[in-house]
Amino acid sequence: MDNAPFETLFERDGLRVSRSPWGPEDNIGRLNLMTAESRQAVLSRADGSHVYDLAVDYFIGMPSWAAAGDPRYQMWMTHTPDGSVNDTVSGATAEVHEKYSYCGDSISMYTHTGTHIDMLNHLGHYGQFWNGRTAEKDLGSRQWLQGGAAECPPIVGRAVLLDVARLKGVDCLADGYCIEPDDLSQAARAQGTELRSGDIVLIRTGRMSRWPDFEGYIRATPGIGLAAAKYLCEEVGVMCLGTDAISIDVDPHQDAHTFVPVHGYLFATAGTPVIEVLNLEELAAAEIYEIAFIGMPLKLRGATGSPIRPIGLSLSTRP
Amino acid sequence: MDNAPFETLFERDGLRVSRSPWGPEDNIGRLNLMTAESRQAVLSRADGSHVYDLAVDYFIGMPSWAAAGDPRYQMWMTHTPDGSVNDTVSGATAEVHEKYSYCGDSISMYTHTGTHIDMLNHLGHYGQFWNGRTAEKDLGSRQWLQGGAAECPPIVGRAVLLDVARLKGVDCLADGYCIEPDDLSQAARAQGTELRSGDIVLIRTGRMSRWPDFEGYIRATPGIGLAAAKYLCEEVGVMCLGTDAISIDVDPHQDAHTFVPVHGYLFATAGTPVIEVLNLEELAAAEIYEIAFIGMPLKLRGATGSPIRPIGLSLSTRP
Amino acid sequence: MDNAPFETLFERDGLRVSRSPWGPEDNIGRLNLMTAESRQAVLSRADGSHVYDLAVDYFIGMPSWAAAGDPRYQMWMTHTPDGSVNDTVSGATAEVHEKYSYCGDSISMYTHTGTHIDMLNHLGHYGQFWNGRTAEKDLGSRQWLQGGAAECPPIVGRAVLLDVARLKGVDCLADGYCIEPDDLSQAARAQGTELRSGDIVLIRTGRMSRWPDFEGYIRATPGIGLAAAKYLCEEVGVMCLGTDAISIDVDPHQDAHTFVPVHGYLFATAGTPVIEVLNLEELAAAEIYEIAFIGMPLKLRGATGSPIRPIGLSLSTRP
Amino acid sequence: MDNAPFETLFERDGLRVSRSPWGPEDNIGRLNLMTAESRQAVLSRADGSHVYDLAVDYFIGMPSWAAAGDPRYQMWMTHTPDGSVNDTVSGATAEVHEKYSYCGDSISMYTHTGTHIDMLNHLGHYGQFWNGRTAEKDLGSRQWLQGGAAECPPIVGRAVLLDVARLKGVDCLADGYCIEPDDLSQAARAQGTELRSGDIVLIRTGRMSRWPDFEGYIRATPGIGLAAAKYLCEEVGVMCLGTDAISIDVDPHQDAHTFVPVHGYLFATAGTPVIEVLNLEELAAAEIYEIAFIGMPLKLRGATGSPIRPIGLSLSTRP
Repeated sequence: MDNAPFETLFERDGLRVSRSPWGPEDNIGRLNLMTAESRQAVLSRADGSHVYDLAVDYFIGMPSWAAAGDPRYQMWMTHTPDGSVNDTVSGATAEVHEKYSYCGDSISMYTHTGTHIDMLNHLGHYGQFWNGRTAEKDLGSRQWLQGGAAECPPIVGRAVLLDVARLKGVDCLADGYCIEPDDLSQAARAQGTELRSGDIVLIRTGRMSRWPDFEGYIRATPGIGLAAAKYLCEEVGVMCLGTDAISIDVDPHQDAHTFVPVHGYLFATAGTPVIEVLNLEELAAAEIYEIAFIGMPLKLRGATGSPIRPIGLSLSTRP
Repeated sequence: MDNAPFETLFERDGLRVSRSPWGPEDNIGRLNLMTAESRQAVLSRADGSHVYDLAVDYFIGMPSWAAAGDPRYQMWMTHTPDGSVNDTVSGATAEVHEKYSYCGDSISMYTHTGTHIDMLNHLGHYGQFWNGRTAEKDLGSRQWLQGGAAECPPIVGRAVLLDVARLKGVDCLADGYCIEPDDLSQAARAQGTELRSGDIVLIRTGRMSRWPDFEGYIRATPGIGLAAAKYLCEEVGVMCLGTDAISIDVDPHQDAHTFVPVHGYLFATAGTPVIEVLNLEELAAAEIYEIAFIGMPLKLRGATGSPIRPIGLSLSTRP
Repeated sequence: MDNAPFETLFERDGLRVSRSPWGPEDNIGRLNLMTAESRQAVLSRADGSHVYDLAVDYFIGMPSWAAAGDPRYQMWMTHTPDGSVNDTVSGATAEVHEKYSYCGDSISMYTHTGTHIDMLNHLGHYGQFWNGRTAEKDLGSRQWLQGGAAECPPIVGRAVLLDVARLKGVDCLADGYCIEPDDLSQAARAQGTELRSGDIVLIRTGRMSRWPDFEGYIRATPGIGLAAAKYLCEEVGVMCLGTDAISIDVDPHQDAHTFVPVHGYLFATAGTPVIEVLNLEELAAAEIYEIAFIGMPLKLRGATGSPIRPIGLSLSTRP
Repeated sequence: MDNAPFETLFERDGLRVSRSPWGPEDNIGRLNLMTAESRQAVLSRADGSHVYDLAVDYFIGMPSWAAAGDPRYQMWMTHTPDGSVNDTVSGATAEVHEKYSYCGDSISMYTHTGTHIDMLNHLGHYGQFWNGRTAEKDLGSRQWLQGGAAECPPIVGRAVLLDVARLKGVDCLADGYCIEPDDLSQAARAQGTELRSGDIVLIRTGRMSRWPDFEGYIRATPGIGLAAAKYLCEEVGVMCLGTDAISIDVDPHQDAHTFVPVHGYLFATAGTPVIEVLNLEELAAAEIYEIAFIGMPLKLRGATGSPIRPIGLSLSTRP
C-alpha cells in the first residue's frame, strides 16, 4: 500500500472525510495495516526479558480531560469486610462474612481517561465521521451502534519512539509547543531510528514529567500540528499514533476557529487511531527507540475511546 | 520453587491466611513466579500470525455479578455531534462544532465485570487478607491503599487450556457442576497437554455458550471445588487461574456455610489471582491447548479487580 | 380558563403537539394553572397536625424502570470513619480523623426512579415536544437546554385521591388493567369527592401493595388509557396527575404500535406533568380524598424528570 | 423542653457524643422538636400567595465539595429522540420511536451537593456518632444501616433568617469570617426578629453572591464558630440550622487540629441537622425574616445527606 490520501467521501470548507480503502464496513482505518506477517515479524524479534509498561495508574484526582464537564475518574467500594458483616447484600450471613471477608469496588470514568486509545468515531466533520458514519443513522441514545473500541483488534506491531523533548534538550517541551515535521524527522535521525510504513509512532513531549499535577499536565499541552500529522500519515504511513500528553493536538491550536483539528484530520481524513497519556519515560531513559508494541483496548461497544495498558518489548537486531 | 503451601500468618476455623514467600511488601502472590526467563521462553515460541482474543465485549445489559447490588455496566455520551453544537461545554462555538463534530462517552462498572482479573485483596478470612493486609490499617474510604490491580504486572506466560466441557462431551457443564482434580488431570491427558509449575491454567466449563443470557450465564455456575484449587496450586504450582464462567467457584458450594470459599483459598491462602469471564471458545474450537498468554489489567489503584483483555498466541513446537 | 384542547403546533398521524397558551417560553404547561389564589385557598384550609408522606425510600435494589438499560439506584460511601483515618483525601491527618469521624456518600440514578415527576420534555411526537421544543435545537450532549425539572415551580395545590382499587374492591388492580373515564368518575362519586379544574388528581391502582417486589411492581402495570387521560385534561382540567404505579400508562397498551402513548398525549398535547411511584397507602387507609399537596422536585437543569418527596395535608371543611 | 445540653454517652479530649433524649432509636435529634402543634401554628399563619424558593439549580460544573475527591454533579441522557430510533433498547421499533420521541436522563452526585441537608451520621467523634451509632455495628458496605436521610421527616416549621451580611453592611462576609454569638443576636435585634426554641435558624453570609464561581463559592467560607453553634443550640434551642454557604463551619477553623468541628458539635453533641447551600437572596431582598419553612429531603436510606428543595412562605402577623 502506498501512502496516498484516501478517497474523499465528503468535503466542505477544506475539511475532508474519507472513504475507507478497506471497505464499507471498516471502522478501524489504518489498524488494517496490521497483518499476520507484520505481527509475526515484530514478535519474532521481541525480547521478553523486560517488559516496558506504557500506562499510568488510575486514581481519584488523576489529571483528566475535565474542562468540558467530563466525569473524572471515580472509584468506590461496593463490598467491605466489615460492611459485608453488617449488611446482607450478598445473601450470606454475618457469621459467614466474618469468616469470608469480602471486598469489591466499582469505577467510573470518561473513556478518554488515563492511558487510552481514541477511536475514529471520536471526531468528524459536519456530522460525517470516518467512512461515512453519522450520528443520524449510527448513534444510539447512549453509544455509537457502529465502530468504536469493541471493534479495535489487539494491537501488535513495531513501534518507534520519537523523543522530541530529548532532541530539544528539555525535560518537557514548552507549553503550547507545536511539533513540526522537521522535529520528527530530526528526532528519528538523531536517534538513528528508521520510520517505516505501518509503524506505530510514539511521540515524547516530556509532559509526563508534569504528572500528576492536574493543571500542569492538562493545560496548553505541546503536541503536533496539522503538518506533522500529514507527514506521519501521508509520508511515513503510520498505523497508529501515540503521545505522552493528554492530547495529540497542540493546545491552543494556531487557528482559533477550530476544535482539536489534528484529531479531526487523523480520524476523519486519515483513519488513524491515537493513544494518549502514554508513559514513555522508562523507554526514553533506556534509549530504546524501537519496540514490539502490544496493547488491547477494552471492547467497549461503540465507545469513542477506551482505557488501554500497552507494553513494549525491546527488539533484537534484525537478522 | 517447590509447590509446598506457604507459611501460615493467621489461622482460624481451618481457614488459613499465608505470609508471602516474596516478602512483606508483596501483594501479587504467585504472579511473582513470572521471570525474565519464563516470559522469554514462551514469547520465543509465540506465533504472531493469529491472535486469539480472550475477552468479551462490554455492553449495557451484559451479564454481570449483580445479585449483591453491584453496579451493572453503564455507558453514556458526554459529547454528541448535535449536542455539542447546541451546548457550549467545550468552550468552542456552535459554528466550530458544526465543522468539528465532537463525540465522547463515559462508563461505569463493578471492577469484576466482563473479562476481568481478581486480585488478592478481593477475599480474605476474619479480616486478614493475603500477606497480612487488613481493612483496619490498609483500607481507605474508597479503595485499598495497598495492593490491588495497579500493582499487577503485565502477565506474560505459558497458558494451558483445560477443556473440561469437551472431556465430558458437553457444550456446557451442568449447572452447579463441581470440577474435581481428576477432571483436570484427565482433561490434560486427553488433550495431550503437560501441566507445568508456573503455568496459567485456563479452565473451560462451556458457560460462554450461554452468553449473553444474563441469568443463564450467571446462575448456578459450574466451577472448581476446593480440592481442584488445591491440586492446581499445591501440586501443579500454577501462577494464575482462568475460567470462562462468572466465577471460579462452583455455585452453590457444597458447604452452605461459606462464601465463595475457593476464592478465599486461592487469594488468602495460595496467593493465586484469577481471571474470569474469559472467552475460550475460539481456542477450544481450534483445539489449541497451549498458548502464550498476554494480558494487562488496568492499573486501578487499590482495586480488587480490573477489566482485562488478554490475548493468546499459539506456540511453535518446542525446539 | 376553560378546558378546551390547546392550539395545535404540529400534527401527524393523529398525534398532536400543542402550542402553549402560556406563551412561547413556557415549558411547564398546566402547572401554570397554579396561582397565588389557588395556593392560598388550599393552604388556608390545610391541617398541619399530621403530614402524609407520599414518597418511597431510595435503596439499592428498589424497583425501577430498568428494562431499557437505565441505571438502577446506586449509593456508595465516599468517606468512612475508618477509611478517612487511613487515607488522606480530606487533607486532615489520621489523628484529626480519629477525633472527627467523617462519613459521606454519593448516589446515582435514572431521574425517573422512586417517587418522581415527569416533565414535559420526557416524550414528544415526531421530534416535536410541548410548545415546539426539539432535540435539533434544544438538546445538548447531556441534557435539554430548555425546560426540564429546574423550571418546575414548587407545586402547591388541591389534590384529590381517586382510589380506583377501592372502588373495585381489590388491593391492587389486575395486571394490565386499563382505567377508563367511568372508573374515575365512579370513584369520585363513591368517595363523595368533587373534581375541580386546576386539581392535582392522584390515582390509586394499589400497585404499591407489590412494593418492593421488583418485577411484581414494574411489570404489566395497571394505568390509565387515552380516554381517561383526555377526560382528566379536557373535561376535569387537571393541573397535574399522579399515580402509585411505575407508569401512568397502562402496560401493555391496547395498541402495540405505540410507546407509552398516554405519556405522549399528556406531555406533548395536554401539557400535563405526571408524578409516579407515589405512596398513597396512608391516605387511602385514612380515607382522606382531598389534600393540600406540597411537592418540590429538585431543580435539575434540563432533566426530563426528578425525584420528589411530596406531602399531603388534610383539609378542614370549606368555610 | 429546656435547652440544657444532652446527656453524655461518650467523651474524650473534650469531644462529646450525646445520648438522645428521644430514646435509643432516635437518629434525627432536634427534629423531634417538631410537633403537630408547632406545624399547625406556623402553617395557620402561612401566606401561600408567594412561594420563596430556597434551593439552587443542579448543573454540570456547579460548585460542590470536591477537594476531597467527592463526585461532582453529573447528568447524562439515557434516551434521546434520535438515539431511540436507532437503538432498540426500549423494545419498541424505530418506526414507533419516530412517532413517540423518547427522552430520559440520569444523574450522579455527592449527597452534599447543591442545597442539601446534613444528617447526624455525617460526623462523629472517635467512631461514635449521635446516640451511639458506630461504623462497627451500623455501617454496611455502601451505606449506614441506621439513621440517615430516609428517617428525616418532612420539615415544617417556623424559620428565622438572620442576615449577618446585611448587619455588617456587606454583600458577602469576608473570606474566613467567623460568625460569633453577638453577630447573631445583633442581627436578630436589628431585624426585629424574635428567636424561639424550636426554630429553624437560617444564617445569611452573602456567599450566594459568589455563586456559581466554583472556587469563589467554596473556598475559605465564612461560617459560624463553636461559640455561635452552642449559643444557637443551648440558648436559643434551635430545631435545625441553615446557611447560604457550602458549610456551616467557618473555614479555616481557628484550631487547625480539627476537621469541621462545628459539624461535629452540631451532629454528635447537639443533635442538630444542618441545611447548606440555601438560596436566601430573595428572602433577604424582600426583608422577610420569619417564614413557614417546608422542606422534604429525599428518603435516601442511610445517607449522610440529601438534596432538598425547601420553600418559604411569609407569615401573617400573629393573631
